[in-house]
Amino acid sequence: MLGVCYYPEHWGTEKVEEDFRRMKELGIEYVRIGEFAWSRIESERGKFNWDWLDKTLELAEKMGLKIVLGTPTATPPKWLIDEHPEILPVDKDGRVKNFGSRRHYCFSSPVYREEVKRIVTIIVKRYGKHPAVAGWQTDNEYGCHDTVRCYCPRCKKAFQKWLERKYEGDIKKLNEAWGTVFWSQEYRSFDEIELPNLTPADPNPSHLLDYYRLASDQVVEFNKLQVEIIREYSPGRFITHNFMSGFTDFDHYKLSKDLDFATWDNYPLGHTLVFLRMKGETKNPFDRVGHPDIISFSHDLYRGVGRGRFWVMEQQAGPVNWAPYNLWPAKGAVRLWTWQAFAHGAEVVSYFRWRQAPFAQEQMHSGLLAPDSAPYPGYHEVKQVFEELKNIDINEPVESEVALVFDYETAWVFSIQPHGEGVNYIDLVFRFYSALRRLGLNVDIVPPGSSLDGYKMIVVPSLAIVKEEVLDTFKKYDGLLVLGPRSGSKTETFQIPPEMPPGLLKEIIPVEVRQVESLGDNVETLVWNGKEYPVSIWREDVDPTITEVIARFKDGFGAIFRKENVFYLAFWPNGDFLVDFFEALSKESGIETKRMPEGVRIQRRGEYVFSFNFTSEEVDLEIPTKVQIVLGDQKIPPYGLLIWKENER
Amino acid sequence: MLGVCYYPEHWGTEKVEEDFRRMKELGIEYVRIGEFAWSRIESERGKFNWDWLDKTLELAEKMGLKIVLGTPTATPPKWLIDEHPEILPVDKDGRVKNFGSRRHYCFSSPVYREEVKRIVTIIVKRYGKHPAVAGWQTDNEYGCHDTVRCYCPRCKKAFQKWLERKYEGDIKKLNEAWGTVFWSQEYRSFDEIELPNLTPADPNPSHLLDYYRLASDQVVEFNKLQVEIIREYSPGRFITHNFMSGFTDFDHYKLSKDLDFATWDNYPLGHTLVFLRMKGETKNPFDRVGHPDIISFSHDLYRGVGRGRFWVMEQQAGPVNWAPYNLWPAKGAVRLWTWQAFAHGAEVVSYFRWRQAPFAQEQMHSGLLAPDSAPYPGYHEVKQVFEELKNIDINEPVESEVALVFDYETAWVFSIQPHGEGVNYIDLVFRFYSALRRLGLNVDIVPPGSSLDGYKMIVVPSLAIVKEEVLDTFKKYDGLLVLGPRSGSKTETFQIPPEMPPGLLKEIIPVEVRQVESLGDNVETLVWNGKEYPVSIWREDVDPTITEVIARFKDGFGAIFRKENVFYLAFWPNGDFLVDFFEALSKESGIETKRMPEGVRIQRRGEYVFSFNFTSEEVDLEIPTKVQIVLGDQKIPPYGLLIWKENER
Amino acid sequence: MLGVCYYPEHWGTEKVEEDFRRMKELGIEYVRIGEFAWSRIESERGKFNWDWLDKTLELAEKMGLKIVLGTPTATPPKWLIDEHPEILPVDKDGRVKNFGSRRHYCFSSPVYREEVKRIVTIIVKRYGKHPAVAGWQTDNEYGCHDTVRCYCPRCKKAFQKWLERKYEGDIKKLNEAWGTVFWSQEYRSFDEIELPNLTPADPNPSHLLDYYRLASDQVVEFNKLQVEIIREYSPGRFITHNFMSGFTDFDHYKLSKDLDFATWDNYPLGHTLVFLRMKGETKNPFDRVGHPDIISFSHDLYRGVGRGRFWVMEQQAGPVNWAPYNLWPAKGAVRLWTWQAFAHGAEVVSYFRWRQAPFAQEQMHSGLLAPDSAPYPGYHEVKQVFEELKNIDINEPVESEVALVFDYETAWVFSIQPHGEGVNYIDLVFRFYSALRRLGLNVDIVPPGSSLDGYKMIVVPSLAIVKEEVLDTFKKYDGLLVLGPRSGSKTETFQIPPEMPPGLLKEIIPVEVRQVESLGDNVETLVWNGKEYPVSIWREDVDPTITEVIARFKDGFGAIFRKENVFYLAFWPNGDFLVDFFEALSKESGIETKRMPEGVRIQRRGEYVFSFNFTSEEVDLEIPTKVQIVLGDQKIPPYGLLIWKENER
Ligand SMILES: [Zn+2]
Ligand SMILES: [Zn+2]
Ligand SMILES: [Zn+2]
Repeated sequence: MLGVCYYPEHWGTEKVEEDFRRMKELGIEYVRIGEFAWSRIESERGKFNWDWLDKTLELAEKMGLKIVLGTPTATPPKWLIDEHPEILPVDKDGRVKNFGSRRHYCFSSPVYREEVKRIVTIIVKRYGKHPAVAGWQTDNEYGCHDTVRCYCPRCKKAFQKWLERKYEGDIKKLNEAWGTVFWSQEYRSFDEIELPNLTPADPNPSHLLDYYRLASDQVVEFNKLQVEIIREYSPGRFITHNFMSGFTDFDHYKLSKDLDFATWDNYPLGHTLVFLRMKGETKNPFDRVGHPDIISFSHDLYRGVGRGRFWVMEQQAGPVNWAPYNLWPAKGAVRLWTWQAFAHGAEVVSYFRWRQAPFAQEQMHSGLLAPDSAPYPGYHEVKQVFEELKNIDINEPVESEVALVFDYETAWVFSIQPHGEGVNYIDLVFRFYSALRRLGLNVDIVPPGSSLDGYKMIVVPSLAIVKEEVLDTFKKYDGLLVLGPRSGSKTETFQIPPEMPPGLLKEIIPVEVRQVESLGDNVETLVWNGKEYPVSIWREDVDPTITEVIARFKDGFGAIFRKENVFYLAFWPNGDFLVDFFEALSKESGIETKRMPEGVRIQRRGEYVFSFNFTSEEVDLEIPTKVQIVLGDQKIPPYGLLIWKENER
Repeated sequence: MLGVCYYPEHWGTEKVEEDFRRMKELGIEYVRIGEFAWSRIESERGKFNWDWLDKTLELAEKMGLKIVLGTPTATPPKWLIDEHPEILPVDKDGRVKNFGSRRHYCFSSPVYREEVKRIVTIIVKRYGKHPAVAGWQTDNEYGCHDTVRCYCPRCKKAFQKWLERKYEGDIKKLNEAWGTVFWSQEYRSFDEIELPNLTPADPNPSHLLDYYRLASDQVVEFNKLQVEIIREYSPGRFITHNFMSGFTDFDHYKLSKDLDFATWDNYPLGHTLVFLRMKGETKNPFDRVGHPDIISFSHDLYRGVGRGRFWVMEQQAGPVNWAPYNLWPAKGAVRLWTWQAFAHGAEVVSYFRWRQAPFAQEQMHSGLLAPDSAPYPGYHEVKQVFEELKNIDINEPVESEVALVFDYETAWVFSIQPHGEGVNYIDLVFRFYSALRRLGLNVDIVPPGSSLDGYKMIVVPSLAIVKEEVLDTFKKYDGLLVLGPRSGSKTETFQIPPEMPPGLLKEIIPVEVRQVESLGDNVETLVWNGKEYPVSIWREDVDPTITEVIARFKDGFGAIFRKENVFYLAFWPNGDFLVDFFEALSKESGIETKRMPEGVRIQRRGEYVFSFNFTSEEVDLEIPTKVQIVLGDQKIPPYGLLIWKENER
Repeated sequence: MLGVCYYPEHWGTEKVEEDFRRMKELGIEYVRIGEFAWSRIESERGKFNWDWLDKTLELAEKMGLKIVLGTPTATPPKWLIDEHPEILPVDKDGRVKNFGSRRHYCFSSPVYREEVKRIVTIIVKRYGKHPAVAGWQTDNEYGCHDTVRCYCPRCKKAFQKWLERKYEGDIKKLNEAWGTVFWSQEYRSFDEIELPNLTPADPNPSHLLDYYRLASDQVVEFNKLQVEIIREYSPGRFITHNFMSGFTDFDHYKLSKDLDFATWDNYPLGHTLVFLRMKGETKNPFDRVGHPDIISFSHDLYRGVGRGRFWVMEQQAGPVNWAPYNLWPAKGAVRLWTWQAFAHGAEVVSYFRWRQAPFAQEQMHSGLLAPDSAPYPGYHEVKQVFEELKNIDINEPVESEVALVFDYETAWVFSIQPHGEGVNYIDLVFRFYSALRRLGLNVDIVPPGSSLDGYKMIVVPSLAIVKEEVLDTFKKYDGLLVLGPRSGSKTETFQIPPEMPPGLLKEIIPVEVRQVESLGDNVETLVWNGKEYPVSIWREDVDPTITEVIARFKDGFGAIFRKENVFYLAFWPNGDFLVDFFEALSKESGIETKRMPEGVRIQRRGEYVFSFNFTSEEVDLEIPTKVQIVLGDQKIPPYGLLIWKENER
């Protein structure tokens, strides 16, 4: 199904009716509104202006559009900030941030939490049972603009309380856990503990990790406050939040537990460019369409975060304004992205935004319509999708034979202690993920600790901290299990495990990491299966006497270790190696693979098989005989797609 | 005429007499003094030391030197800062700047404005009618060291008042103008408005633009304060200010209205290096002489800012101290720069400085004399110019057939919203300007709204915001008019015009920009007149149905549009294209062009034609027959020049 | 002799006994302990826990290990910071630094100095005469993490007092010395003077230089406070400090005067990488072993700082955690480094650390033992060295025919006023030093003003400020003396000398620098002895009429000047030129040279000659006949070494 993001407060009610009519024509079913409208709802304390919103909902109901109503808490209005300046967050350098954009609040502020409860209660009480309201979005893109980690006095107090709870009121436990004997960092009480910023040298990594956890928990709590109110006053409506791609500052699984499903905001061009720059690459061959795996990684991740259910809440529909540079998408890209989302299991794809605003910060961020209401190219592609959808029934769930374990704590561990240039958890995960996709495999992304039943192969790019219950899932699993470098390398409080890395994982793979090295751009040569592969960034020196070494570096160090069904990769693997390696493992596991051409990807959902061409050239795809093509042609045009049903499967 | 910058307070009066004698010998007529001497004039509140300055002026009078007296307001002394620390400015990060260099004041500070009035009044009353005083320079290089935009409480208050005036006391007008409905940025009163710094996300561009205007206006007001006092107490003397090259943080046209003429500070080596680095270039083939167009652009600009009249107030005379690296100039460069200034209309070229100070911040910034009073190489070149000037009468005005419209607001719009890497107004302007110069054309640089009568071609690299009165000048103009990208792209308050860009300009060129893209380093191919040109940085998607498309990109998008005498370029053109294009347009306009060799430039002033060789090789210039050579030879030596009179013209 | 750094407080006394036993086995004689243990010694004000330390010393005594006891002042505990937050330092941006790592104190804080006196007195009184205590280390790595220069109110007050003393209470002298007449910077009293940070433009260089001196002096004073207490209560024990390689923020000679000898912390891999990056180089051919000259430069420097005596207090023993990336060392490197240290005169090489801590900031910084107490590869190399040492007696002093003058003030002058990219004192010094080492020469590094008797050649890469007593040593010296660029370029208060550079040095080399230029990456060509050499970064225009020009640039400027035994190099020489040049000069001086292969170095100590192979290839070294090989073989394996005795010399 299709949706759209819309700001009735920008246009006046007279225009809303016409807009709704045109949305219906385009096949839109869901309209997200309201998430930045606090000052329009409550222009000063206690002065509410409901007219425009009442009218909007009334029109939606009349025209059969379903509303996703946003809570407006990402943008507290000026009068509120002036009443309580302590709502403003403080950055790592100690600077109080200012009103004048968005997300200018601290998640820990008690006074802001009270105000959030107040405004959400008022709005939900008013509209919670409105027939047009199908569901709710809490706030907007939690953490955007680096706002999860705040360094204000409220956060310091919250951190102290959080630590006191975690360490059961016993400061000795904290001292032990953090190793504060090092550098005389010992504390006598929880209220002595500072936030871990502005230290002359690096802060204690245990201190940082606990602070990152607290900051993540504050977001979860902040969201839960809202969820509880919505549950109470808006029965039968769903609750979701629009997450950001590639963002790891809080634990999305944990927050998502309070939601009915996940949604995410899909901007393929900017995300691809930013991802490539993070890796130091300057060329972007996918500049007008985005890299298929960078996009689908988020689809698969948020399907996991949403426990099988997700939407794209904001789908790029034309050029945007925030990337280092902003191209307009290739002709066909908007249609391609939409079908890709459905192929990966999206229930709804909701475009951002209905009409480009001619004013303020996002005036150069396009939508389906230009400011003068004329359609942009993307509009016509949406129309096409709407027509195509009439013949294709896509409600079945996505099923995968392979699962990849993605973990937020590991992202924090790597960022706290990269130990060398290029060490970045997302980069590592993407290497594993993309290799699987190059083999034509569906991939589920799952949190550590989730059930692994039914999967034929499990891939763990890295899991720095291993909990007993996670280990149990690994122990119970009898398919092939691949563990990447730095797995099990830290205890829960960021220490090297007493049994040495991989710590608890030694129970399933009896290796012992004696030393590690970060390589930067230095290249060592891995030899596996008679072939050589360059390795940079990271390598480990594993005790070679314990288990089977199935591949070595040219200089003799062990690289790949195996014990029964479990593999340990003691290095930062590159994509070409992983494709070869996973191909071999898939064969052993009875998983059928098919090497995809560069930029071409395949995804299965229910009885449908989708093939996407993210290149600027026509692709002549080899497809199985006796399939029923339901959309497109075996010769897939640039930025085109092909859908078939596998009748005989 | 020649001048020099001099600091009598550095040397003691005994040395001044000798220095003045040597200046006379060298042909110096004007001596600028006093602009940093506040602490020498008033060593503590109310304690004045006039002796040195009385004596200096007396000697000048005696020896027939004309003094340009600077107001010392760029350097408030320590006792004043200690009395009123609120004079100190605050940077964008919220840090109060410190005493210990220069420009440590906020333009908005009421207490500083009072002090400025006081000291200027005292000085001007004392010397305003002194026979040696020919004129005044206000302050020094307004805005140097990023000091136009201050983020202190005084500026916030000034901004609120400025907005209240602009929006006629009606906060609704401001909310409308800024689109504050976006992200709940609505204000209830003017005193709620913050300065646009330290926001978590980008500030509202309308907010920024108005703040940039206020900051610019504060400089204009600050200057005017001084001008009014000087006008009152120093009748018949000129008033000027020494502007900086390539600096756009305030509106020079607006400030210059209160001056008698403009002056600027010409440091070719550093300006060229800094300009090239801004463009990401690392090679500098003009490392010992500067790029001729980078220099002459400022000559032509400040001739426009000065309404036809300008000086070079500070002319580089040897190696300086502030560029990323600092070479000594090529032999001949000082002479070359001097003649180039005169060719472009300078009335006076005043060298910086007489004698290098052996102490403090600028001890590595050379002058005409070394600290030990021995002449530097540049000294001898000045001497040569002085001799050469005796035979050449250069009082006629510069006349140009082409005018380029340069606009400060457009610089602000581009910097507030570049939309992509490489988008920089000065870079764009320079491409247009340099192409015209490569064709051997004189160029006038004019503000938007000035009369276009008499020009055969008008070039507008971009004019983001188009006022009615500016449109009128375009409408009345019947020569060829070339409009660059992003022209008319914003309303006065930084919104997309309701009629879509180019907004009001649609009246003269009926195109409609539907989408834009920033390209970064991506290359698209323009085809014009059978030739291909690479285009990067910026491109626009123009509705192709409205007017004549005279060139397209290879992928089909329109690139150059024409309606009668008006052209619209929907992309960021490169130099080679512009040379070809302007050559064709000049032909159509009856303008004679001549392609100049790399590094060689020609300029006409009155009956004189000047040819400058900025290369390290001799140039054998093809010159018209029957001209009268008045200086140099047709074979122009490296860093040399040739002047002739076009008798037969 | 061998030593090790150890943290008994990390492990509990039960483990100390076993550790000490294993140390003895490994041949360890010295154990450094205690330098970060304040919170373990005094857990709150007045509450002392001596048990663990008493026991440690008792065990050491029993087992015959010598203890180097560190004063714990680098890490004031939290309770002390909470009592006196004014102890915290303030950075250049005005931000108060936070507790949570180390070095979080201001050297000027009066309250901290009192606390330091208190805790040091208590500790030294308790253990000063303990038989196990061989000596003391004050604090730890003064200045690490950019902590020498603090911008707090205490430092401002200290600076004002320091200036008042220096300028004998006469503010006019300061105004004169700093040239404050420039830009109206004049002061009326010492308490008007600010710290030189946060100025809109560059601060006055004289102001900066005096501030750098004060900051350096505060470190010296701070150290002396401790030394005096130790001398009083711990008779017969040595006092030292562990300096950092390549660190110049305070004057090590001055501080070292209060010590018995110097020690330094030798981390070859990280130092090499950081040094290469400082020079803009990205390739590191010595990535697993370090560059031999970068390492030995510090050996030779600290031998000079220690007036002939030094230790390596912390010797890298495996991969570390703080460089841009962190490789594990090549097999053999730990042995190689140890022998290199002894060859250059080290009395003790003390490894960092005994056992890697599994917690806190340095958990990825290895040691001799892993956290689980298993030996790392370096352990076995130490064992090997211990065995090898039994047959080699290395107590004789290092003797050199060449001395290089290294000066901290020159480092400050260059950093205050680089005048162009690439201008860095350490880079310049290294070029001279490395060229001498490439010729197989022993090099002494000496402070300006030390006796030059007995040396056959003196090399002064640059000496910006020349004192009379230093000039005297040069005048008395009759061997070849080579002075590099910018020598004599500044007066004591950072002015250009009245006689022009090289100022006082004109008495020994009658050149006069008329102009200088920084070249960046521009290349000029030096011609010397019939050969051409590229020159970048820096060049000077020297009056060519005064003395003998023995080499010129291709464009005619003089490059190398000679008067009798003194040379002046008016440019930034590259390594290949310096090798050729010093070879010629050595010949003239009767110094025997031998060009060493890339990565191979030779060093003489007493009767021993050491050859080190820092490459990954075997080296077949040509050695004199009739020498007695005492270790290794003429074919030196990768990362191996050869030691012989020159019987016949
Ligand atoms: Zn906070
Ligand atoms: Zn201000
Ligand atoms: Zn301090």
